[in-house]
Amino acid sequence: MQRRSFLTTSAIGATAGVIATPAFAQINPEVKWRLASSFPKSLDTIFGAAEAFTKRVAQLTGGRFQIRQFAAGDIVPGLQVMDAVQAGTVEMGHTPSYYYFGKDPTFAFDCAVPFGLTSRQQTAWFDQGGGRDLMRDFFKGYGIINFMAGNTGTQMGGWYRKEIKSLADVKGMKIRIAGFAGRVMERMGAVPQQIPAGDVYAALEKGTIDAAEWVGPYDDEKLGLAKVAPHYYTPGWWEAGPQLSFYINIKEWEKLPAQYKAAVETASYECHVTMQAAYDTRNPSALARLIKNGAKLHTFSRAIMDEAYKISTAVMEEEAARNAKFKKVYEPWKRFRQDQNMWASVSEQTMQNYLISIGRK
Amino acid sequence: MQRRSFLTTSAIGATAGVIATPAFAQINPEVKWRLASSFPKSLDTIFGAAEAFTKRVAQLTGGRFQIRQFAAGDIVPGLQVMDAVQAGTVEMGHTPSYYYFGKDPTFAFDCAVPFGLTSRQQTAWFDQGGGRDLMRDFFKGYGIINFMAGNTGTQMGGWYRKEIKSLADVKGMKIRIAGFAGRVMERMGAVPQQIPAGDVYAALEKGTIDAAEWVGPYDDEKLGLAKVAPHYYTPGWWEAGPQLSFYINIKEWEKLPAQYKAAVETASYECHVTMQAAYDTRNPSALARLIKNGAKLHTFSRAIMDEAYKISTAVMEEEAARNAKFKKVYEPWKRFRQDQNMWASVSEQTMQNYLISIGRK
Repeated sequence: MQRRSFLTTSAIGATAGVIATPAFAQINPEVKWRLASSFPKSLDTIFGAAEAFTKRVAQLTGGRFQIRQFAAGDIVPGLQVMDAVQAGTVEMGHTPSYYYFGKDPTFAFDCAVPFGLTSRQQTAWFDQGGGRDLMRDFFKGYGIINFMAGNTGTQMGGWYRKEIKSLADVKGMKIRIAGFAGRVMERMGAVPQQIPAGDVYAALEKGTIDAAEWVGPYDDEKLGLAKVAPHYYTPGWWEAGPQLSFYINIKEWEKLPAQYKAAVETASYECHVTMQAAYDTRNPSALARLIKNGAKLHTFSRAIMDEAYKISTAVMEEEAARNAKFKKVYEPWKRFRQDQNMWASVSEQTMQNYLISIGRK
Repeated sequence: MQRRSFLTTSAIGATAGVIATPAFAQINPEVKWRLASSFPKSLDTIFGAAEAFTKRVAQLTGGRFQIRQFAAGDIVPGLQVMDAVQAGTVEMGHTPSYYYFGKDPTFAFDCAVPFGLTSRQQTAWFDQGGGRDLMRDFFKGYGIINFMAGNTGTQMGGWYRKEIKSLADVKGMKIRIAGFAGRVMERMGAVPQQIPAGDVYAALEKGTIDAAEWVGPYDDEKLGLAKVAPHYYTPGWWEAGPQLSFYINIKEWEKLPAQYKAAVETASYECHVTMQAAYDTRNPSALARLIKNGAKLHTFSRAIMDEAYKISTAVMEEEAARNAKFKKVYEPWKRFRQDQNMWASVSEQTMQNYLISIGRK
């Protein structure tokens, strides 16, 4: 409707020969973008939140700014979304920045690092604690501007064929895990493996791998791993609050009228809220079903957590010593984390722990 | 600029005598609203987030939808924002729904009830767990449509002249507290008092009251209560995650074009995120300063928490028994809370507790 009225108005402008209508056209141009997602449609919480984002942007621009989302593999593989946005193959992407850890570990601060921020802390850091400026400064080097676009909350620690009772059980364990966590796991004695999600079930069944990490109950349930690797561990210490991001090619971003930029900025906040809310709403019943169907819930032992933390810290300090970009983010981030955990311990956590204790009664 | 181009286009339309431009005018009318806040400008985190909301809505509508925010008392007192929106005195308000507990305790589910949801759980419930539908059905009876618009996170339990070591210390204690918490406190033997924020310091200094609750470190610091009531308790068990809301008069809402409705909906998500992120970012340093300046931090004892929980549950069950509207929300809400705390105990909390433990080292 909006489009049709614009076209008619435009025709009038041409007839009357005045500049007013072209000015309107300039402010509200028709724009069509492609968004490459790092995820398949089956991860419907993530994919669905981005889909709602594209619909909202269209609504906010009277249907004139259309963004079409493509699933991982449709245009580029899920792990190459950053490259596609950088190259301008697509204008936009939806991806977790730690996928690009191999290019520069600094990417991970935009998503999650081992023993990093919870989702609420990550949001505070990015939105109000200086994180956005630090990360955008880094992303500029890739010709990309980044936006918060969802969080899963603390992920689970994955599925294991056998119980992991002590550090000795970690030695030699073949686990499907990548990036920062893979580097830490390797130093703990495990053998990180790269296997596409679709092949995980078979690899666990055959014993080609001993363990695999994925997301959390709602997404994990679809893979059916409880049958072949029933020991379900918590917490995913490498993903306390992994943030999803929208990437936009900076040149394309700069072409947008101010109103369209505002639409993208605002709608990405909505995506950020709805994705986590959807995970939080769906995870409890999924976990209950998993347990009913044979998943055995365990918590990593204190000794394993302590060793993972010690190694994670060492890996991060080493990276900071040799990588100035990493260090520039890491130092203020570390202070922010310290402050946030102090504050959480005083208020939120005291309350949450009490609520959990009464829920157990 | 947008406005000027519209006016010129409009003039052309009139000259040409076609219907296209009036259709555009109908889609993008100039709208001016007033927003009554329940808060003074000095609560800059809350007030500022709503201000950013009004700016965003203007941006998203090319400056054609202007909302002007007024502080508490400018048009109506802070506690009468609901009435003003209902009556159409203002089109919109920004307020915590538990202020209207006296009209119907059901309002409190839109904000906070004792031992209720944390901010993340409240967001999940409202946005994806059925809360929005339940609350909007209730608000219809007041001619209002409500939106999430911020959260403070778990608040502090307030300032006390003397230590509260046991339930005996609660008996006869005059505390500035209202609504649901006031009703629970009263049954615990305390004497709830209603005192404007500006008079709290003097009342505590003179001993007219023994205690007062406000918000959290960042806002509390401005009142300077540590000097007259140094014992600072946690957690504010009556406010695990109080949500702020935007209220809009339904008749005014229905007059808006779809694009303006979308602008309000989306921008309220942004406000929801930025307010909490700002509190989270500002609270840690404020707490550190408070402690440096004499505040003595305490945690309510398990016996006090248990008694407060027992009475809170009794009060809610009684309300559900006599108030069908309350019961309609309470029953599904109770199940949601149970599920959320189970899930939090498995994943998020396990991680957060570990992060706190390493932060303390």
